[in-house]
Order: sequence, then C-alpha cells, then structure tokens
Amino acid sequence: MKYAVGIDFGTESGRAVLVDVGSGEELGTVVHQYANGVIDRHLPAPNENVRLEPDWALQDPADYIETVKTTVARLLDQTGVDPADIVGVGIDFTACTMLPTTANGTPLCELEEFRRWPHAWVKLWKHHAAQPEADRINQVGAEMRERWLPRYGGRISSEWFYAKSLQILDEAPDIYRAADRLIEAADWVVWRLTGVETRNSCTAGYKAIWSKSDGFPERSFFAKLDPGFADVVDEKMRRNISSLGERAGGLSAEAASWTGLAPGIPVAVANVDAHASVPAVGVTEPGTMVAVMGTSTCHMVLGSQLKLPQGMCGVVEDGIIPGLFGYEAGQSAVGDIFSWFTRFAVPPEVHDRAIRDGLNLHQVLGRDATLLKPGESGLLVLDWWNGNRSILVDVDLSGLMLGATLATQPHEIYRTLLEATAFGTRAIIESLEAAGVPVNRVVACGGLPERNKLLMQISADVTGREFDIAASTQAGAVGSAMHAAVAAGSAGGGYDSIEQAAAAMARPHVGTFRPDPSARKVYDQLYREYMTLHDYFGRGANDVMKVLRAMRSQQGGGG
Amino acid sequence: MKYAVGIDFGTESGRAVLVDVGSGEELGTVVHQYANGVIDRHLPAPNENVRLEPDWALQDPADYIETVKTTVARLLDQTGVDPADIVGVGIDFTACTMLPTTANGTPLCELEEFRRWPHAWVKLWKHHAAQPEADRINQVGAEMRERWLPRYGGRISSEWFYAKSLQILDEAPDIYRAADRLIEAADWVVWRLTGVETRNSCTAGYKAIWSKSDGFPERSFFAKLDPGFADVVDEKMRRNISSLGERAGGLSAEAASWTGLAPGIPVAVANVDAHASVPAVGVTEPGTMVAVMGTSTCHMVLGSQLKLPQGMCGVVEDGIIPGLFGYEAGQSAVGDIFSWFTRFAVPPEVHDRAIRDGLNLHQVLGRDATLLKPGESGLLVLDWWNGNRSILVDVDLSGLMLGATLATQPHEIYRTLLEATAFGTRAIIESLEAAGVPVNRVVACGGLPERNKLLMQISADVTGREFDIAASTQAGAVGSAMHAAVAAGSAGGGYDSIEQAAAAMARPHVGTFRPDPSARKVYDQLYREYMTLHDYFGRGANDVMKVLRAMRSQQGGGG
Repeated sequence: MKYAVGIDFGTESGRAVLVDVGSGEELGTVVHQYANGVIDRHLPAPNENVRLEPDWALQDPADYIETVKTTVARLLDQTGVDPADIVGVGIDFTACTMLPTTANGTPLCELEEFRRWPHAWVKLWKHHAAQPEADRINQVGAEMRERWLPRYGGRISSEWFYAKSLQILDEAPDIYRAADRLIEAADWVVWRLTGVETRNSCTAGYKAIWSKSDGFPERSFFAKLDPGFADVVDEKMRRNISSLGERAGGLSAEAASWTGLAPGIPVAVANVDAHASVPAVGVTEPGTMVAVMGTSTCHMVLGSQLKLPQGMCGVVEDGIIPGLFGYEAGQSAVGDIFSWFTRFAVPPEVHDRAIRDGLNLHQVLGRDATLLKPGESGLLVLDWWNGNRSILVDVDLSGLMLGATLATQPHEIYRTLLEATAFGTRAIIESLEAAGVPVNRVVACGGLPERNKLLMQISADVTGREFDIAASTQAGAVGSAMHAAVAAGSAGGGYDSIEQAAAAMARPHVGTFRPDPSARKVYDQLYREYMTLHDYFGRGANDVMKVLRAMRSQQGGGG
Repeated sequence: MKYAVGIDFGTESGRAVLVDVGSGEELGTVVHQYANGVIDRHLPAPNENVRLEPDWALQDPADYIETVKTTVARLLDQTGVDPADIVGVGIDFTACTMLPTTANGTPLCELEEFRRWPHAWVKLWKHHAAQPEADRINQVGAEMRERWLPRYGGRISSEWFYAKSLQILDEAPDIYRAADRLIEAADWVVWRLTGVETRNSCTAGYKAIWSKSDGFPERSFFAKLDPGFADVVDEKMRRNISSLGERAGGLSAEAASWTGLAPGIPVAVANVDAHASVPAVGVTEPGTMVAVMGTSTCHMVLGSQLKLPQGMCGVVEDGIIPGLFGYEAGQSAVGDIFSWFTRFAVPPEVHDRAIRDGLNLHQVLGRDATLLKPGESGLLVLDWWNGNRSILVDVDLSGLMLGATLATQPHEIYRTLLEATAFGTRAIIESLEAAGVPVNRVVACGGLPERNKLLMQISADVTGREFDIAASTQAGAVGSAMHAAVAAGSAGGGYDSIEQAAAAMARPHVGTFRPDPSARKVYDQLYREYMTLHDYFGRGANDVMKVLRAMRSQQGGGG
C-alpha cells in the first residue's frame, strides 16, 4: 500500500490528509488553526500598536510552516503509516495570497527591520485595500487594448497579484525595493519544503495574467502602470512556469525533520484549493462543471479549445489539468447570503422552532421552504449581496428582492435566496455554453452541498443539469494528494498523469439531484424574469445600485 | 357651555366623544367593541354553519345600534353634562360599508327569512370578494369612455358601492330583489337615529360615483353591467344628496330613549371617518393636505376647481367641505409595512434589546435608524407591499428592496421602509401639484404620527413640506361633532358653517416637523431613483410583479 499527503492551506486553518494512492481512501485528517489567523486589525504582538486600515487582511507565513510541522507529524502518528510508504506531498492554497521575500525565500516580515511594516507581511486573498491599483490596471489594460483582458472577464480583481504588488510599490517603495521576490504563498511553501523556487501554472495563470502561449503581459504595460513597476516580472518573479503535477523538488532534510517524512520524496508544484478539487472529484475531461460551494461559489470547467465566455474569472491553459483550458467563474456570495439572512432577518418565532426541533435555522427554514412549489412565494431576488463576479464582473452591484406582500413569510424569502443563487449559476452555465464550452452536468463539492439538499435540488431544477454531490468534504487536500502521486510517477509508486490518478483515487459521488421537469418549466419562466432584471440593473440601463453605493460612501455608510 | 356628540364607527369598535362647542375640548370618550366584530369566517350564532368564502368581510348592523346605546349613555353619565346643553349629534363611518334594507330601513339580515344569507348582511369596507364585479365595472366604464372614470384614478375599487351591489345581484338575486334599499351603513345609522333617509355627499361621491354636476352614472351604463342592474339608482337608492353639515333630521324619540339625549336635537348628515378628520384638524381651505396615517394612509386636499390629478381615489365636489372639491388619494399600506417588517424580519437580537430597554420594536429600530444619515444605508424600497393605490392604482404591484449587502442591518431596512412611504406621499403631492392642486403643508393625524416621530421628520425632509401633528387622536369623532354643531346652526347653539366650527373647535397642532435642507437635497436624489423604479415597474416597462403574482396564484400561493 502506498500513500500520498495533501495539505490544504485555508483562510483560518490548514489541514493535512493522508490518502491511499490505490483507492483514494482518506486514512486520516489533521487540522491546525493558525495562531495569528487573519490579521485585519493590527499586527501581531509585540507590534499591536501598528494598526491596519479597513479592507486589509494579512497572514503570518510562520503559521504555514507550523501547519506543516503539526499536521503531518500527527497524521503519521494517528495513522501509523510507515513514512517509507508515502510517495509524495502536494499542497494547495488560497489565492492570490502573496508575500515579499529575499532572494533566498526569507519573508521580509521575518526580518527585524521590516517586521513593523504591514506591507512586509503576507497579503491574504481577501485583502481588499488594493482597489485603486486594480482600477489603474484595468484602466491601462483597457487603454492599451491588452489581449489578455477578455480572458479575465474584462476586469482584474483587486485581490490579484499585480494589484497587491503595485500597492506595495505605491505605499511602501522601500519594501518593494527590498523584495527580491514577490511570490504566491503556495509557491513559497513549496520553496520552503524543497529549497527550490517554482511558480505554478494555476496561480500564475489565474492571478498573475500568465498564459502558456503569450507568457506575462509586456514590459510596456507594467511601465505604464508605474515606471518603477516596469520590470516586476524579471526582477521579482520568474518566467519559467511549472505545470500542475510536476515534481517541484525533493523534500528537504529540514522539512523531513519537521514532519517525520522521508527526505527526498517528491513534492508537487503548488496548486489552488478550488482547482485542486477538480480531479479530486473525478473530473479530468471537458463537459462537467465542478462547483465548489461555500460562502461563495467557484465554478470550473475544462475545455479543449480557447474560448472567451463572458464574465469569467479566468481562462488558463494548463490552469487546472495539463493539456486543457481551465475555465473559472465565480459567484461572490452564496452561503454568505443565506447566512446574512439567518443572522439579520429571521424572527424569534423561527429561532424558537429551530430550538424546539433541534435544528439549525437553515434546516428549519429549509424544511418549510421545501413545501413550497416553484413560483409559489411570488418573490424574485438578484443574488448580488456581495456584487456580481460572473458574468457581470461588477463589485458595485447589490442585492434586490421583489414581490413582497404583507403575507410574505421568512421561509419564502429563504427559498427565493436559494433560487437566486441557482439562477446566478445558470447564467454562468449559459455564458459558457454560448461561447462553445459545454456544461452537461455539475459536480458539487465544498461545505454547502452536504448541508443544504434543497439548494441542490433547486440548482438542478433551475439549471436543468444533474448535480452530483462529491464524496470528499476536503476535495482540495485530496486533489493535492493526487498531484503528489503524479509528481511521484508510476515508477515512484504513483501515477503518470492526473487522469490516471483521478480514475483510481476519486471516490464515487454520494448523491445525485436530477432536474424535475415540471419545476424546471416554472423556473424557465422565473429565470427569464431574473435575466431581464439582471440585464436592466447589471448592464447600465439603470445604474441605481451604483448611485446608492456612491451615496452610501459619501454619507459614511459601511459594508 | 354647549356640547356636541360625535360618534365614529370603526372596523372593530365604535367610539363616542363629547366636545365643547366653544373650545373644541374633548370632555370624554367611550369606546364600544362590536360583539360580532368583523365577520369573515362564518355567520354569527346560531348560523355558524354558514361559512364565508375567503375575502369576505361582513358586519352586524345591530352592533352599530348597540354602539349608539352604550357609548352615548355612558358619555353623559361620565361627564355629567346636561342633555339640554347638547346641541346635536354627528356620525362618521368606515366606507364603503353598505347593506340591503327594506323600504322602512330594516336590514334584510334582521328578517328571519334572510338571516342565513350572507348577502343580506352588511358588507364591510374590506370585503374584497367583489373583484370580478369591479373588473366588469372598469371594463364597461372604459369601453363606454365614462367621463367619471378619470375622477377615480381610472379605476373603481372592489371595495366600493356598485361592485358590492352588483355582487349581490350576481350571487343572490333574491336578496337583490328583496332589497328596497341599498345604503351606506353611515346613512342607515342616521336613518335609524332620525327616521329620515338621507344620502350624504361624501360616500355618494367617493364610493357611488355621484357628482354634484353630473349626478350618478347613466342608466345605460348600469344596464350594460347587467340588464337587471339598470335601475339600481332609482329602485334602490335616491338621487337627492345631502351636503355635509346639513341637518338630516331631529333625534327620534326612540333614539333619544336609547341614549338619554333630548328628542328632536339635530342629527347631521353622515360622513366618512377620514373626511370628517379634515375640519377636525382645522383644515377648511385649499393648500393644506390632511394625511390620516395608520395601517394605510389617506390623503385629502381641498381645491377650488375641478382638476384631474393622476391616480386619485376620488375627486368630489362637496365631498369634504361644502363648496370645495375634495381630492382624496391613498397609500394602501404604510404602518402595515412597518408591522410586516417587525413581525417577520427582525432578529432576536433586536427583540432582546427592546425588552432590555423597555421599548417596542419600532422604538428600538427607530432609535438606531435616527442615527443614520439619508442615503447612508445604501438601500431603496418601493412601498408596494399591498399594491399601489395612488398614483398608479394597481393592486397587483408588490414590494421591492434594492441595495442589500452582506453588511445590511435591520435598522437600515427599517429606515428605508419609512423613507419609501414618504416617497410614496411625495409622488401623490407632486401629482396633485402637477394638475394644479397646491399642497403647501401637511397636517398628519391618525395613529402613526404620534408614535413614529422619525417617520414624520423623514416625511417632512422627503416632501419638503412642514408636517404638523394634529392634537386629537380621534379626529374622525371630533369632526363629526363639528358637523353636529353646524347642523345645529348658530341659532341652535352651534355654527352656521364648518369653517366657523373648525376655526373655533380645532385645537392647535401638538408639533411641527420642518424639512432639513441638507437631508432634503439627498432625498431629492433618492426620490429621482425611486421614481425611475416606480415608473419602470409601475407603468408597464417591466411587468415582472404581475407575472410573479400570476405564477403565485397558479401555484396556489396566498397573500
């Protein structure tokens, strides 16, 4: 029996999983909570007096190394597996989560002279303070008619690599100058595990505007952003990109000593959590969408050709599975909308019933909402509580509910919120298909599918696609273990391709939700109404959402 | 000292008030709860087995007589006033609340042979089962280009006189035939008090399509509704209409014996509650709007000429003050929307704070909402939870909230609901002014103004008009007492005109809310956005609200 280790670095914690390379069985999981978690108010002790602006979100790279040390050693201990039977290690990460380091990979925040500088720390994916820089990137990109822009829905997010890098240059030029490297935390951890600096094709493609055919944007583009930024690629990054499943290097003696793993075993090139989930749930071919559904939803589909569907987060060759184009789309709030509702808009009567029946609010609302027929509530919602990523790519849009009467009940609103997120998913599927990227079925993973069966049924009914529920609730870590097995290769006890690894290791889905034809018919009608509102408020006919947002900012309103 | 009695007949109860004719001081009030209240499930004992359809709402005329008996006698008892010092009696009523009677005024439901027939009972204003008849009236009215139609916003309500009468003919032709009279309950009570049948100009004008210049609709119109309905006016009503403040007759010996009042004292022609409130709060001239604000809001303005502002409930010469045109508009839900919100959409945390601070939910939400600046919530609402009466006259419209984010808080939504009703009021004011009916200030009465100061300030800021708060919380009854004093005339210890009565008896307002210029500026911008949505959803560009309502009905949804 051979095993692979996958380590998934999340927002608040990291987790390691030990997977049977033959069957995909998960033998054990260990979770480690980061000591400093999300740093969004002030720097950690002893620098608490360094306060952060709103929208900042940092992390401490030491938390990642501590995760490696704690989880893997305990995993070996728990499972009793012989380290000699472990063929390799793979990791996946949130992204874009990036940091400045020295030439040897030391994070600037670990140097005494920079420790009190917020810009020396890791910028977490949800650091949103680089919006002015993102605006500049988008403006210059549009002016220069950059050919990469349509691959990213026409707009680069403030969360991504160059916005964050440019913010460092703008606000802390000394840090920018001192940084020999600006690097994804994912790649940095692999560097620390192996002693070898690599850049993976997934984060490079989705977050740093790299493409296999065109490479990075031209120097002239970066120069126009800021003359000092002209050589960011050649000075701070590297042009040599590694494909997913490649061996980044062998586990260093130091990293072996942290973990109890054998030195020299293959470490795979890093990956992004959502993207690693795709092979983990058995998807390595075009035609099937993988939806990672949680607070937000990330949608990934493979294609054999480059197409430009409207409103993608990114289209990257080799971005998910080597040899294929990976299409990524996103809904910026899904579970978050339901949580907003249960937190701020559910009356005591429903809370009381939940307590009485031993259910949570989602369960008691879902129980009532299940009894409603499609269309019975008379309500329609635009699911834009956190803007719209795909397909409108507009963070300034906001939520809308329509159809309320004096008889409207909480469970009716709840169901309508679920329906709205399903309409949002359908808009993404239709955008893909209109561009020639087929979506025949959906595999759902992440936290939501298991917890919210009504959402799954509604999603199937609304989209007219079967929704399979993935077996693993930690698909990212399992996908990383698959990539580890590929990095090992068949000669090393693993596999020679991710397709082979997924065929052997992906476990059968635990359930399938099939579209109900009669529900689908009603939803077809509701979806037409949804899209009419979607286009009216989302494509400039009525800019009221932007006007309100601007007024809110003028009046000092938050959120 | 001279006194007048005003009796206000409400939906669940009636109240009598004794008013000092010289000063308007209210010496006492007695309330009587109707024994049978609103009859909307089944007929009263012993006929409980006669069940009513949904949307039915009946009353028992015996409850009105019992109100007269109970309240007036106790009022005299409580105040110790000498009946010889009481100059007259006036009453006001909900409308259109109507019933079939014999030629001598006996309600058909009091005859043994008709007592088990629902159509023999009083149809309360909120009896909504005559919608098919209202649809027919509107269709025929439009086809025949009836010139009265624009005076009623282009649409007659199912609540009004002919819809209810036609429903009797449609569903219970025997009752229709047996009815020598179809009469407003208001006029019926005056008939019972005096022995004289009168028809007042207010209900005739606002509910039975009478106008001083044109009389009732033509026979040909009624004939087209149903040949059997052709002579409804001449067979079941009377063409002779009495103006408000006229003496209907002297108090009959029988009615005197019920009440302890002196026989023969003047009884004024009946009136409608909201309309009686106008002189009660001191308004007898054009230029000032009276808003009776409660679960819904009724807006009344006087004008010296006939104009046809869009979306009125009615325009009636002599309908409020003799010699002037009375313009009535309405918002079909105001306080009801706020109550919906506190009932169905406020989380336990707010309930807990309310309990802790000894406040009700409106108070604790209002306290938080007062701290918000206009525009700070980033939200905008269309206040159509119960459709829109004025100015769109469309019961099928529904509520909309726009601008929600994951940070949106309950008190922000609450404030936005208040703002939306104020925008609705502004739309009415602008419709009136656009047609040449000036509205320079507003006097607010009813239950809401005293309870919700934030609503008053917002209403002033949004409309740019001062909002005065009326002193009396029972303006209807006080207005009826004023009309009683006019019926008595100066020779009888009262006044010769309602203007004189109001000048003497209306008490000073208890507060004034003045528009804040900086708030008004922000609201001007929000109101433009409100009206863009109002017109888009309300005037046919996007019929999604109607589509949703139709789908809801198909799927068996309620509300």
